Amino acid sequence: MATVLISGLGLIGSSIARVMRGNDSDIELIGSDPDDDTSQFLLDHHIIDKRMNFAAAAQIADLIVLAGPVSVIISQLKQLANIKLKPDVLVTDVGSTKAAVERAAEPLLAKGVNFVGGHPMAGSDKSGSQFGSQHLFDHAVYFLLTKSQTNRKLIWFQTLMAGTDIHWQAIDAKQHDQLVSELSHVPHVIAVTLVNTIADSLAGNPAGLRAAAGGFKDTTRIAASDPTMWTAIMLSNADQISRELVQFQKHLAAFQQAIQSHDEKTIRETLETLRRIRKSLDEGK
Amino acid sequence: MATVLISGLGLIGSSIARVMRGNDSDIELIGSDPDDDTSQFLLDHHIIDKRMNFAAAAQIADLIVLAGPVSVIISQLKQLANIKLKPDVLVTDVGSTKAAVERAAEPLLAKGVNFVGGHPMAGSDKSGSQFGSQHLFDHAVYFLLTKSQTNRKLIWFQTLMAGTDIHWQAIDAKQHDQLVSELSHVPHVIAVTLVNTIADSLAGNPAGLRAAAGGFKDTTRIAASDPTMWTAIMLSNADQISRELVQFQKHLAAFQQAIQSHDEKTIRETLETLRRIRKSLDEGK
Repeated sequence: MATVLISGLGLIGSSIARVMRGNDSDIELIGSDPDDDTSQFLLDHHIIDKRMNFAAAAQIADLIVLAGPVSVIISQLKQLANIKLKPDVLVTDVGSTKAAVERAAEPLLAKGVNFVGGHPMAGSDKSGSQFGSQHLFDHAVYFLLTKSQTNRKLIWFQTLMAGTDIHWQAIDAKQHDQLVSELSHVPHVIAVTLVNTIADSLAGNPAGLRAAAGGFKDTTRIAASDPTMWTAIMLSNADQISRELVQFQKHLAAFQQAIQSHDEKTIRETLETLRRIRKSLDEGK
Repeated sequence: MATVLISGLGLIGSSIARVMRGNDSDIELIGSDPDDDTSQFLLDHHIIDKRMNFAAAAQIADLIVLAGPVSVIISQLKQLANIKLKPDVLVTDVGSTKAAVERAAEPLLAKGVNFVGGHPMAGSDKSGSQFGSQHLFDHAVYFLLTKSQTNRKLIWFQTLMAGTDIHWQAIDAKQHDQLVSELSHVPHVIAVTLVNTIADSLAGNPAGLRAAAGGFKDTTRIAASDPTMWTAIMLSNADQISRELVQFQKHLAAFQQAIQSHDEKTIRETLETLRRIRKSLDEGK
């Protein structure tokens, strides 16, 4: 029987536990999380078998899944390089940025430990183990950053994650971090800034809040996400996010100028071009 | 039997037609729209009874609903001031900005015509009569800008729109235009600019497009909306939108600076504050 340690039992970690449990594989699932309620919830629901301290569990694990915030993943990777692990262990993570994670994994790689970086592109504005789901990764892309792991180990991990329709996608750290900056981190900064801009004005305006239908709630939904996770993400991908924001600011300044000067032609052309692009996203072209 | 003219048979206009039709009121519904397919679709589905030229239909109508883009509404209001209307007619519109509409209605008001401005806060990134629905306005706020209409006429209009759970909400033009700028127009500019910023980078990156799950698609969905309608909106509320965008740019520059300088404290505090605010929106507080 294999022993799996999942460290970080939030939305992603608890969903991975649910998927592995749902597969009825012959595994023992150990959870490690500083939060008592989270751990107890998963024990009560028989999603994990046991709760243990990270360092102790790491020594007996055949698979270690690091599913905390990026900052925690980075410190745990360094910690693992100083722990006596099982010789055949596979270490993986689910961090939202990968270049910083790969740097932190170097001491572990130097010791010849099997490591593969990972990032499932699934999430929710809800956080916490109770919102996890066996189906969170259905139809989602799961990025893999192959490093020192053997092929046999990688296939074993994918087998444990079977039963959910994951699109496994190989990528390198640089491409990954640029892509998630564009698809996720920069949109997050924008959503947060939008809420910031109008918050004062909307406060104490019940009619306005009730009218906040459709567009506004959609655009800003992700601003309700977990601040700890997002602070770690922004710090670990700061240079890329910052560069993209500078580009965004240039485009926005041009559009603002067109609106301020009532430049109908520029406004219309911008909207028409972008409508075509946005539609092509939905069609997956 | 009362005669109702709906000019502009897109998402909103055709939904109003469906609501009135669904009420089985004893009315004749005349549609006016430059698009042949749109008109034929509604005739085929018995949602409107007749298609007519705007000026001709206006002369025999008891209720005139202007449901085209704001630019069309403005020109039709001016046009109506030069048409011999029925003495007891009620004119209303559904335009997304109201100060410009009220200015355009002045000649009509000077002639003593019943006019009430309106704006249902409902929509979709889909446009066109086939996407209209009898339930589009369910639970939506419908702003009313009372002007020269009699109370009797206003109640009659609301009766025609019964059977859908509309929250009627009185507001003045200045407050309205500021509110929709914040809730709708500025978010629209932001979404469009976000697509603009990353479009080049994503083009020709199928893995990236497939990975565009969750946040990104949500944030940018409204960029797929009708460019004609949105160009008209932006021009008619340009000063307000422009002012808000300048505020947004200031907030964004500060956040970008915090990210660039890896200022963990500022990033975390910003995210925590805004999460609280965004959550309070969902709770309607």
